[in-house]
Amino acid sequence: MNTPHLPPLLPEVAQRPVPPAFLAALQARFGEQLSTALVVREQHGRDESAFDVPPPSAVVFAQNTQDVSDAVTLAAQYRVPVIPFGVGSSLEGHLLAVQGGISLDVSRMNQVLSINAEDLTVTVQPGVTRKQLNDEIKSTGLFFPIDPGADATIGGMSATRASGTNAVRYGTMRENVLALEVVTASGEVIRTGTRAKKSSAGYDLTRLIVGSEGTLGVITEVTVKLYPLPEAVMAATCSFPTLADAVNTTIQIIQMGVPIARCELLDENTIRMVNAHSKLSLPESSMLLLEFHGSPDGVKEQVALVQDIANEHGAAAFAWAETPEERTRLWTARHNAYFAGVQSRPGCKAITTDTCVPISHLADALLDSVTEAREAGLPYFMVGHVGDGNFHMGYLIDPNKPEERALAEQLNHQLVTRALKLGGTCTGEHGVGLHKQGFLVEETGNGAVEMMRTIKRALDPHNILNPGKIFTL
Amino acid sequence: MNTPHLPPLLPEVAQRPVPPAFLAALQARFGEQLSTALVVREQHGRDESAFDVPPPSAVVFAQNTQDVSDAVTLAAQYRVPVIPFGVGSSLEGHLLAVQGGISLDVSRMNQVLSINAEDLTVTVQPGVTRKQLNDEIKSTGLFFPIDPGADATIGGMSATRASGTNAVRYGTMRENVLALEVVTASGEVIRTGTRAKKSSAGYDLTRLIVGSEGTLGVITEVTVKLYPLPEAVMAATCSFPTLADAVNTTIQIIQMGVPIARCELLDENTIRMVNAHSKLSLPESSMLLLEFHGSPDGVKEQVALVQDIANEHGAAAFAWAETPEERTRLWTARHNAYFAGVQSRPGCKAITTDTCVPISHLADALLDSVTEAREAGLPYFMVGHVGDGNFHMGYLIDPNKPEERALAEQLNHQLVTRALKLGGTCTGEHGVGLHKQGFLVEETGNGAVEMMRTIKRALDPHNILNPGKIFTL
Repeated sequence: MNTPHLPPLLPEVAQRPVPPAFLAALQARFGEQLSTALVVREQHGRDESAFDVPPPSAVVFAQNTQDVSDAVTLAAQYRVPVIPFGVGSSLEGHLLAVQGGISLDVSRMNQVLSINAEDLTVTVQPGVTRKQLNDEIKSTGLFFPIDPGADATIGGMSATRASGTNAVRYGTMRENVLALEVVTASGEVIRTGTRAKKSSAGYDLTRLIVGSEGTLGVITEVTVKLYPLPEAVMAATCSFPTLADAVNTTIQIIQMGVPIARCELLDENTIRMVNAHSKLSLPESSMLLLEFHGSPDGVKEQVALVQDIANEHGAAAFAWAETPEERTRLWTARHNAYFAGVQSRPGCKAITTDTCVPISHLADALLDSVTEAREAGLPYFMVGHVGDGNFHMGYLIDPNKPEERALAEQLNHQLVTRALKLGGTCTGEHGVGLHKQGFLVEETGNGAVEMMRTIKRALDPHNILNPGKIFTL
Repeated sequence: MNTPHLPPLLPEVAQRPVPPAFLAALQARFGEQLSTALVVREQHGRDESAFDVPPPSAVVFAQNTQDVSDAVTLAAQYRVPVIPFGVGSSLEGHLLAVQGGISLDVSRMNQVLSINAEDLTVTVQPGVTRKQLNDEIKSTGLFFPIDPGADATIGGMSATRASGTNAVRYGTMRENVLALEVVTASGEVIRTGTRAKKSSAGYDLTRLIVGSEGTLGVITEVTVKLYPLPEAVMAATCSFPTLADAVNTTIQIIQMGVPIARCELLDENTIRMVNAHSKLSLPESSMLLLEFHGSPDGVKEQVALVQDIANEHGAAAFAWAETPEERTRLWTARHNAYFAGVQSRPGCKAITTDTCVPISHLADALLDSVTEAREAGLPYFMVGHVGDGNFHMGYLIDPNKPEERALAEQLNHQLVTRALKLGGTCTGEHGVGLHKQGFLVEETGNGAVEMMRTIKRALDPHNILNPGKIFTL
């Protein structure tokens, strides 16, 4: 989901100095690949979050791994923070120069390096976006399923351990990144993993870097798994009398092991916003958006099973998206739910949530959260990758009314606390960034966060790689 | 595979002192849970590898997390190595006291702590074995698929990132461990992960510990995924005119995305050994052992597809294992292939390999390796989890003939070098332990191994947790 946040407070850490000699050295090395223009810095000094932070002092546009290595080496020498940047679609303030420093833009590193169709893998530079990747491999009959909504870069998606609508079947970046090339805090280039499907060769550095939000290294190459395009794809919407019916249908689908490819939920309130925004006329009640992948017979079997389950919960008939174009329209409407929400209240900002809970607790986690939002009287939208137990609330607040912001943060706090009690996580797919640092400690305990800090200190002794994200040192 | 090794050389590291005061403190804390009897120490001083190393100075039988924490705390105080021990089925010398110290036996921590059938998860103590786990959850209609052959503990399987025959469909321990409780090098108890299916909450400590071979922490609790027992299961064997035909059939099955549950290969030579050992009369030619999971129709569809592919490669008719008993007999014979191999040459030892390559290179990797073994004239067996691109050679040497050992190690070296060139890994599932430390550097480079060392030094500053495994410091 492509969703700005309004955080309660930034961790209070001073901006670190960016010595003129460092900028001069960068200028000498990078020439026109360096920009200090305010407009460029400002564009790199924000992401989809809405923190108010001074922009970075400069932006380096890397064109290859050597550029990344040289930029980081110089930054290490001068102890200057380096913040990797893809397309700026992250949601938790990951890209903000909270301690000053430079932005390292890898969007020009956008080559698909090698397509190994016969192994179902592809190796790309970090600035390749997911849509670009799928375009470039179209002729192979394969696809890359991870779809967080935004047309994010593969590097950024790796760094935040992204997932999205297809994860219920195909997993997240955690399961789909096989190997990385990474520039470490000293500027050294290392490789993790291989193209083999499995390995027991030492510490799993690949999965340590995936989700590390740019704090342990700069990703300069990513090898991911691909999947054969399914022979048959069917997509449908299905409306339910109550939100609980839709949620309980989802729970049963997952518990029965149906290999559903997408299972998304929008509540009545959100459907209304989506209808207005995308000029649709979906029935205004809680709705599941479903997609099935497989052989023609396999898909039929899945559909029959899911229809039975849905019917038991009072579902209306499935409305099928018969053509690829209709499917695209359906999923575009889903992906635009955030914008539909924000536009429903002109001038508002969204404070969004990202909990994920064990599937049996989805009803407890989700229904109470929606009830609390309704009772609070704050406009909201609700969308969910519910097949994974993951859903997002977006509280639509007037940014000029501190009491609304406080109310939204309070609702968020109640929601996260509930999810953690139910065995869940404070962030299913967006990452910790700036906004969830307190929740991370609540979730995993001081001991685990202290272990993370110990690793960070060891691998980045001068704390130059995206400092202040996930935790402060 | 349950396979001893004969390594070329142990890394030369001195045994570290185990002060009498430390043993006295252990005695005071653990009483009858401590053993210094030679027979007990010797039993804990070896695993399925065949290194000749002095046994640990003592064995602590932990009964709960507090015991583990207290033992590690004392060891930290006295700087004594601690080697976690489950059932002793590891293959790469993981359990050997190469630097001295104590064995920390967790096999009495064998409780299934909570079955969350409705979430498809279970939380167990580390000493629970995979067969025990499947017995205890039988009534839920769920199962835990990871099957490395040996009845290993879930703790040990986590520590070595184990996989086995079902991994081609269900993944390895990497994909199936959701959360851990771990005792760190200071004796602190931490938790990693949650029961949520996905999370972006900070560094992926769960997957850092999985596969760390006891060097970063002692696992005291594991939460793993479960799967609904498939409605239909069919297993079959299928013989091929040549080894190449069997391998190429496998490659096509995987490339077409067939969700096969098991796809195992034995060559003609190995079939002969298995027939003799398990009193079977399998046709003596290269053979795939296959298993299909799914709905009845889904299984039929998979079978039809695979039969078509196999027929194109000249396969004989499938021989079906019709009953659960026949299936068990088939897989037992497969799991006993190692013993069949070793018994085929009385008094021999097996030096085994564990490479895994991208699926398109399986033929290159496997056929050349078998040819080299044949040409060298050394007796061998060959079994493979070929659906994953993973196979094992076992060179059957006379331990009294150094020239045979040297030849086997040379064949192993050629085989690993080839796999690495093809984009593969030196160990698909057994781990690095003592035997593959050189190959690890070849595979991933000095930079990545140095990063592993940096993490180890930071998290275990006195190098007490299973020191000398994966790498020496």
